[in-house]
Amino acid sequence: MPITSPVRLQAVEAPDQPDVTPALEDLYRGLEQELLVPLWTEIGDLMPAHPRSRGVPHVWRWDSLYRLAAQAGDLVPVGRGGERRAIALANPGLGGRPFATPTLWAAIQFLMPGEDAPEHRHTQHAFRFVVEGEGVWTVVGGDPVPMRRGDFLPQAGWNWHAHHNAASEPMAWIDGLDIPFQYVTEAPFFEFGRDQISDAERSTPERSRSERLWGHPGLRPLSVGEVAPGSPLLAYKWEFTDRALADQLALEAEGYPGPVEPGHAAVRYTNPHDGRDVLPTIRAEFHRVVRGVETAPVRETGSSVYQVFDGSGTVTVGETTWSVTRGDLFVVPSWQPFSVHSEAGTTDSDSGALDLFRFTDAPVFEALRLDRQEVAR
Amino acid sequence: MPITSPVRLQAVEAPDQPDVTPALEDLYRGLEQELLVPLWTEIGDLMPAHPRSRGVPHVWRWDSLYRLAAQAGDLVPVGRGGERRAIALANPGLGGRPFATPTLWAAIQFLMPGEDAPEHRHTQHAFRFVVEGEGVWTVVGGDPVPMRRGDFLPQAGWNWHAHHNAASEPMAWIDGLDIPFQYVTEAPFFEFGRDQISDAERSTPERSRSERLWGHPGLRPLSVGEVAPGSPLLAYKWEFTDRALADQLALEAEGYPGPVEPGHAAVRYTNPHDGRDVLPTIRAEFHRVVRGVETAPVRETGSSVYQVFDGSGTVTVGETTWSVTRGDLFVVPSWQPFSVHSEAGTTDSDSGALDLFRFTDAPVFEALRLDRQEVAR
Amino acid sequence: MPITSPVRLQAVEAPDQPDVTPALEDLYRGLEQELLVPLWTEIGDLMPAHPRSRGVPHVWRWDSLYRLAAQAGDLVPVGRGGERRAIALANPGLGGRPFATPTLWAAIQFLMPGEDAPEHRHTQHAFRFVVEGEGVWTVVGGDPVPMRRGDFLPQAGWNWHAHHNAASEPMAWIDGLDIPFQYVTEAPFFEFGRDQISDAERSTPERSRSERLWGHPGLRPLSVGEVAPGSPLLAYKWEFTDRALADQLALEAEGYPGPVEPGHAAVRYTNPHDGRDVLPTIRAEFHRVVRGVETAPVRETGSSVYQVFDGSGTVTVGETTWSVTRGDLFVVPSWQPFSVHSEAGTTDSDSGALDLFRFTDAPVFEALRLDRQEVAR
Amino acid sequence: MPITSPVRLQAVEAPDQPDVTPALEDLYRGLEQELLVPLWTEIGDLMPAHPRSRGVPHVWRWDSLYRLAAQAGDLVPVGRGGERRAIALANPGLGGRPFATPTLWAAIQFLMPGEDAPEHRHTQHAFRFVVEGEGVWTVVGGDPVPMRRGDFLPQAGWNWHAHHNAASEPMAWIDGLDIPFQYVTEAPFFEFGRDQISDAERSTPERSRSERLWGHPGLRPLSVGEVAPGSPLLAYKWEFTDRALADQLALEAEGYPGPVEPGHAAVRYTNPHDGRDVLPTIRAEFHRVVRGVETAPVRETGSSVYQVFDGSGTVTVGETTWSVTRGDLFVVPSWQPFSVHSEAGTTDSDSGALDLFRFTDAPVFEALRLDRQEVAR
Repeated sequence: MPITSPVRLQAVEAPDQPDVTPALEDLYRGLEQELLVPLWTEIGDLMPAHPRSRGVPHVWRWDSLYRLAAQAGDLVPVGRGGERRAIALANPGLGGRPFATPTLWAAIQFLMPGEDAPEHRHTQHAFRFVVEGEGVWTVVGGDPVPMRRGDFLPQAGWNWHAHHNAASEPMAWIDGLDIPFQYVTEAPFFEFGRDQISDAERSTPERSRSERLWGHPGLRPLSVGEVAPGSPLLAYKWEFTDRALADQLALEAEGYPGPVEPGHAAVRYTNPHDGRDVLPTIRAEFHRVVRGVETAPVRETGSSVYQVFDGSGTVTVGETTWSVTRGDLFVVPSWQPFSVHSEAGTTDSDSGALDLFRFTDAPVFEALRLDRQEVAR
Repeated sequence: MPITSPVRLQAVEAPDQPDVTPALEDLYRGLEQELLVPLWTEIGDLMPAHPRSRGVPHVWRWDSLYRLAAQAGDLVPVGRGGERRAIALANPGLGGRPFATPTLWAAIQFLMPGEDAPEHRHTQHAFRFVVEGEGVWTVVGGDPVPMRRGDFLPQAGWNWHAHHNAASEPMAWIDGLDIPFQYVTEAPFFEFGRDQISDAERSTPERSRSERLWGHPGLRPLSVGEVAPGSPLLAYKWEFTDRALADQLALEAEGYPGPVEPGHAAVRYTNPHDGRDVLPTIRAEFHRVVRGVETAPVRETGSSVYQVFDGSGTVTVGETTWSVTRGDLFVVPSWQPFSVHSEAGTTDSDSGALDLFRFTDAPVFEALRLDRQEVAR
Repeated sequence: MPITSPVRLQAVEAPDQPDVTPALEDLYRGLEQELLVPLWTEIGDLMPAHPRSRGVPHVWRWDSLYRLAAQAGDLVPVGRGGERRAIALANPGLGGRPFATPTLWAAIQFLMPGEDAPEHRHTQHAFRFVVEGEGVWTVVGGDPVPMRRGDFLPQAGWNWHAHHNAASEPMAWIDGLDIPFQYVTEAPFFEFGRDQISDAERSTPERSRSERLWGHPGLRPLSVGEVAPGSPLLAYKWEFTDRALADQLALEAEGYPGPVEPGHAAVRYTNPHDGRDVLPTIRAEFHRVVRGVETAPVRETGSSVYQVFDGSGTVTVGETTWSVTRGDLFVVPSWQPFSVHSEAGTTDSDSGALDLFRFTDAPVFEALRLDRQEVAR
Repeated sequence: MPITSPVRLQAVEAPDQPDVTPALEDLYRGLEQELLVPLWTEIGDLMPAHPRSRGVPHVWRWDSLYRLAAQAGDLVPVGRGGERRAIALANPGLGGRPFATPTLWAAIQFLMPGEDAPEHRHTQHAFRFVVEGEGVWTVVGGDPVPMRRGDFLPQAGWNWHAHHNAASEPMAWIDGLDIPFQYVTEAPFFEFGRDQISDAERSTPERSRSERLWGHPGLRPLSVGEVAPGSPLLAYKWEFTDRALADQLALEAEGYPGPVEPGHAAVRYTNPHDGRDVLPTIRAEFHRVVRGVETAPVRETGSSVYQVFDGSGTVTVGETTWSVTRGDLFVVPSWQPFSVHSEAGTTDSDSGALDLFRFTDAPVFEALRLDRQEVAR
C-alpha cells in the first residue's frame, strides 16, 4: 500500500492480561456487578493505533437499487407516519442498521407521478442529489425547488419540507443525512408539518426563490441579516458544477493550476453566506476524473459515500476494487485508502470522464480537530 | 414534569405499516439481500420527536468504586500494553460497553505508591479530576503537574503523558475522555511513548510549568505563538475554583448578579488562549448548590457525568431520584431533565454546600449547531 | 429630519473654561513647552455627541471628470514613477488632500489605446469599477482580467498588478482604495514590479483565470488551500449583478421578500472563500432604485462614495440635495443621513431605474465594533 | 541598522514630473477648480516604500508631567463639560494635536483628595494604568474598581464611568484611549451620565465585582451569556502581572521556555471571555527586561506608547536614544525599530529590572490584515 503513516504506530492489539487467579476472578465479578469495565481488557479495541472501521467498503448497484425502489413504488404508499418512500444503504459491518457509515445515511427516495411526500422537519441535516430524471419539486419553507439530473439540494436541519412529483413519470433520487450521527449522539428532534402543501407551493418554477436570492456568484442580498446554520442556497444546479469542473480541466490544459492533481478536477459545495460547508455535519463535493487517469490514494479520518454520476472505471477502497458505472453507490470507511481509475476512452475523440458525487462527515472532524489526511503523491 | 417543550412534538412512535402481502414480503427479501433497509419501518426509532436516550440515568457509589480500584491495585500491575489501571463506568443501557454515555468515558484510575503509568499519547481528549488524595504527578510533554483534591487537569489529544505516584499512599482519581465518541466516529490514533520518564520528570513541583506560563488571570505569555487545540493550562487548582464560587455567592448576598440562579453558583473551565471550552469535545464545569436549595430542572441535548465533590443531597434525573454524597458519580442522559436538591444544614451555622463537578459533550453539540436547552424557571 | 437618535445626546460643544488668571496662563505655557495639551479645552472637538464629519457632502460630475482625464491622456505620460494616470477626488473639507473621505480614495484612471500602466504592488486594498467603455485588461498576478461596463474588480493589497489597453479607444474607470486610511494609520508598503508584462499576459480572454476557478455560485475549487486576505475572485461581471438585482425586484413583484425596502434592490459583493467583504477595509455594494421610489434615510458611522451607474434622480446627503445622472460621483460622510429619489419615468412603459455603485469603509468599523446605523422607516 | 526588510523596497520618493507647459498648467488649474488631485504628483507621499511616520519618537518626563498635572490640580476644577483633569501628550510631528501617535491618546489624569470626575460614556475605548499612588476608584457601570500602583484597568467603549478620590492625597494615573483613531475615522459618540454617583458607588472595596466574577484564572461564570466588546474584567492587578513575569524569568533560569528572548519576559493583557486583546482597538502589554540585557530591535506596523514602570535604562527608537526612568513616557512610531537596554546593576545582588508598560494599536492592524513585523535576532 503506497500510504505510510507519518507517525510511529505501535499500539496494542491484544495486551497481555494478568494471570487469572481466584482473586482476579473475584475482582472481575465485583466489577461486573457494579457496572464497571477495566480498561486493560478493552484498550486494544477502544484505542487502536489508527482508526479501524467497523463499517466496511461496499458497493450498491444502481440497477438493483432503482428496481427495488420502483417495486416499492408499486407496493408501499407514501404518507404521514412512514413519511418517505426511502430505502437506505445498510453497511454490512454495522449490524444491519440502515447506516451507510457510522455517521451517514444514504438512501434512494422514489416518488410516483402526482405523489406527495408530506411536510415535516427534523434536526437531521439533509440533502438530495439527482443522478437521473426530473419532475419533482422539493418545497422548503414554502419555496419550490426543482430537481433535475446533476442538481444538489442541501437542506439544513429544522426546515419544513415536502416533495411533490409534478411529472408523468416516477422519479428517484439520493437522500443523504446525518441520521446515524444524531442517533448515536442522541440529538434528534422531529415534527410533523401540514399534511398538504398549498396550491402556490405546487408551482413548478425553473428556479427556486433561494436561487434567485443567493445563486449569483460572489453576491449576497443586502436584505438578509442573520442566516440560520446551513446554506441559504437550496439548489446547486448541474450547469454550474459541470462548468466549474470543465474550467479547471481547461486551465490545466493551458498550463495553469486548477485541478487537485493531473486530470482530476474537483469542487466543494459551499454556503455562500460564509464559504464553509453547506451543512454543519456534511461536506459535499463533485469530482471529475479524466479518462485513463488514476488518482493518488488518499486516506482520511471520517467516512464518505460516493455515487457515480457518469462514466465508468474502477475504484479501490482499502484492499477492495470494484468496477463502477452510472448510479452505483459505494462507501469509503474511515482511514481506508481510496483511489479511482477512470476507464480509458475507446477512441481518441471520446472525451467522457468519470464523474463522482461525494459526501462525507468531514465537518464533524474538522470542527472537533480530529481531521487527519494522508495523500500518496 | 415542569419542563414543556416549546415545539409541538408529535412524531411517530410506530407508524402504520403497509399490509403484508406476498409481493411486499418479496420486496423485503429483495431489500435484505441487497443490504437495504426501508425508512418506513425504522423511522420511529431513528427520528423520534425528541432525543430518546439509550443511555439511562445511573449512579455509581464512590465507596464501591474505590474499594474495587484498590483491589485492582493489589492484583493488576500497571504497565505497557494495559497502560493504565483504570476502571470505567458502563452505562446499563449501552450494552455492557465501558461507556458512561454514548460519547463519554468516565473511569477511576488508581496508582500504588511509587508506581508509574507509562508514557503514551492518543487523539482522545482527556482530563483528570481529583475528589480525594494527592501525591501523583501527571507528566504532560515533560511537564510534571501535581494532582490534589479539587484540581482539574485537562489534557488535549495527542499530548505525550505519563503518571507517577511520588507518595507513600495509593491515589485514585477520575479520568474523563471522549473514547466512546471517537470510537463511534472512527477517529482514534494511539502511540506508545517512552517506557520510563526521566529523573527530571519525576520532580514534584508545586506548580507545573504550564501554570507558571498560563495560570495568571487575563494574562498570556507573549512568547507563545500558535497554540494547539485544547487548553495550554494543564491544571486548574482547587483554590481558584473554590474562590470563584465563593465570590459568586458573596456577590449574591450583597444583592448583585453572580450565580446562575439563587443559591447556585457555577463556573466553566475555559481555555485561556481563546476563552472556549478546555477540550474540543468536552466541557467541564463546577457547581455549588447552597444548603437547602433546589435547582430548576434543566434538559439539554447531549449527555453529562457528575461527581459529587462535597456535601450531600438528592439529584433527580428524568424520573429517577437518588441520594448522593462525596465521590458518587452519576449520569444525565440527553434531554432528560435534571435537578439537584442540596441537603439542608442541621444547624444554622452549617455553611456547607453540595459541590458538583460536571463534564459533558456540549462542545460537540455547539460546534455542529445541535444544542438545545430548556430550563423550567 | 426623520432620523432621531436612540440615545440621549447632550455632549459639550464648547465647555466652560476656567477663568484666565496669570497662574493659568503660566500653566498653559508650561504645557505647551512640554508638548502637552489639556483635554478640557479640546473635548468639544475630540469627543462630540455624535460623529461630526470634516469631510463634507460633495458631488463630482462625470463629464468634467472624463474631460479632464482625457486632457491628461494627451498631456501626461503613464510610466514608472508616476505609475498611473489617476486623478483623485479631493473632499473640500479635507484640506486639499486627494481624499474623497477620511478613509477612502476615489479616482478616475485613464488609459490611451495601446498604453500600459507598469506593474507594482502595495498594501493598499484596491478595486476598479467600470461605468463605461471596455478594452482594458488588468493583469493581477499574471492573470489578465477584462474590464467592461458594470464590472467590479477587487484587488486585495500586495498583489502584483498592471493594466494594458488592448483596444483602439481610450478607456476610463474608477479606482477605489484605502489610501487615506493607510496613510493616516501609517501602514503602507509599496514595491515596483516588472516594467513590462509578458506577451502571454497581454492576451485578452473573456474570463480571467480567477473567474474560472472561483466564479461559480456556491462552488469552490478543492485545489486551493489557504487563501490570502481579500477575495480570490478578481472580477464580478455585470451580467450577474444585473440579474441578481432584477431577481430581487421580480421576487418583490410576486409578493416575496427580496429587496431591502420597497422598490430598492441591493447586493453586496462578497469574498466566495468566506462570504465576507471583498476587501479587508472596503465594502462594495450595488443598489437599484425603481423609478419614482424614494429610499428611507439612513445614517451610519463611516463614509461612502457612490457612483451613478445608470438612470437619474436626486440624492440627499445631510442637508444637501443634488440631481445626479450617469457617472456622477458623490460622497456621504460619517453619520450624515442619506436618501435617494429615483426619477419617475416619463411613460408607463419606461422601466429604467436609478442604479448606484457604492463603496464604504464599513469593514473597518465592523471589525473594531464601531459600527452604528439608524434607518428612518 | 540591524533590521533589513525581507521585501525589495524601491518605491518613488519624488517621481519625475511631466514638463510644465501652458497646456499642463491649464490642466492643473482645471483639476483644482473641480476639486481633483493627480496621483502622479502625490504618490511619493501617499504610497511610500514603507511606512514613514509623521509621528516622531519623543519622550515625556514623569516629573514634568506630574508637576504640571499637580499645578492643574490647584487651578482647574473638575466638572461637567471639561469632564476630566487630563493632560495629553502631543506628538511634535502631529501638528500640535493632543495625539501621542496618529491613533493613540495618552494623558496623565489628576484627581485631588475628595474630588469626583462626573459620569459619562463614549465609544472611545479606554484604559487606566497606575505608575504610582492609590486612593481613586473608577466606577464602571456602578462597579467601584480600585486603582493602585501597577494596576491596569481596561474599559471598553460605551460603558458609563466616573472616578472618585477617596483618599487624603492627590492621585495621578495614565489614561490611554483611541481618541485620535476615532477622530480621524469619524466614529465617536459621547453622552453625559449622572452628575453624582450614589453613596453605594462611593464604597472602596478591595476588589471590584468584575474581578470577583472574571478574575479567576481559566474560569468563567456560567451566569454570563453574551459579552459586550472588550474585556469584562475591569482590573488586572499588579500582583498577578508581577508574578507572571517573575515566573517566566524563573522558568528561563531553570532552562525552560518562557520569556520572548533571553532576559526579556512579557505578557499581554487579554480578555478572559475570548482570549483576545482587552480592547477592540488597543493592545496592552507589560515587559520586564533584566538588568544589563539589551533587547533585539523590532519594528512593526502601528504605533506604541510606553511608560517606564520601574528601573532605568536606555531605549532606542529609530535613530534616537534616551535614558529613561520611572514614569517616563515615550512613543514608538510605525515601522521604527525599537530596542531597550536595561541598566546594569551596581552590585551583584541588585535584582531590579527595567519594567515597561506598553500599549499599541496592533488590534486595528491585525483585524484589517495590515500587520507586519521584523525582528533582528
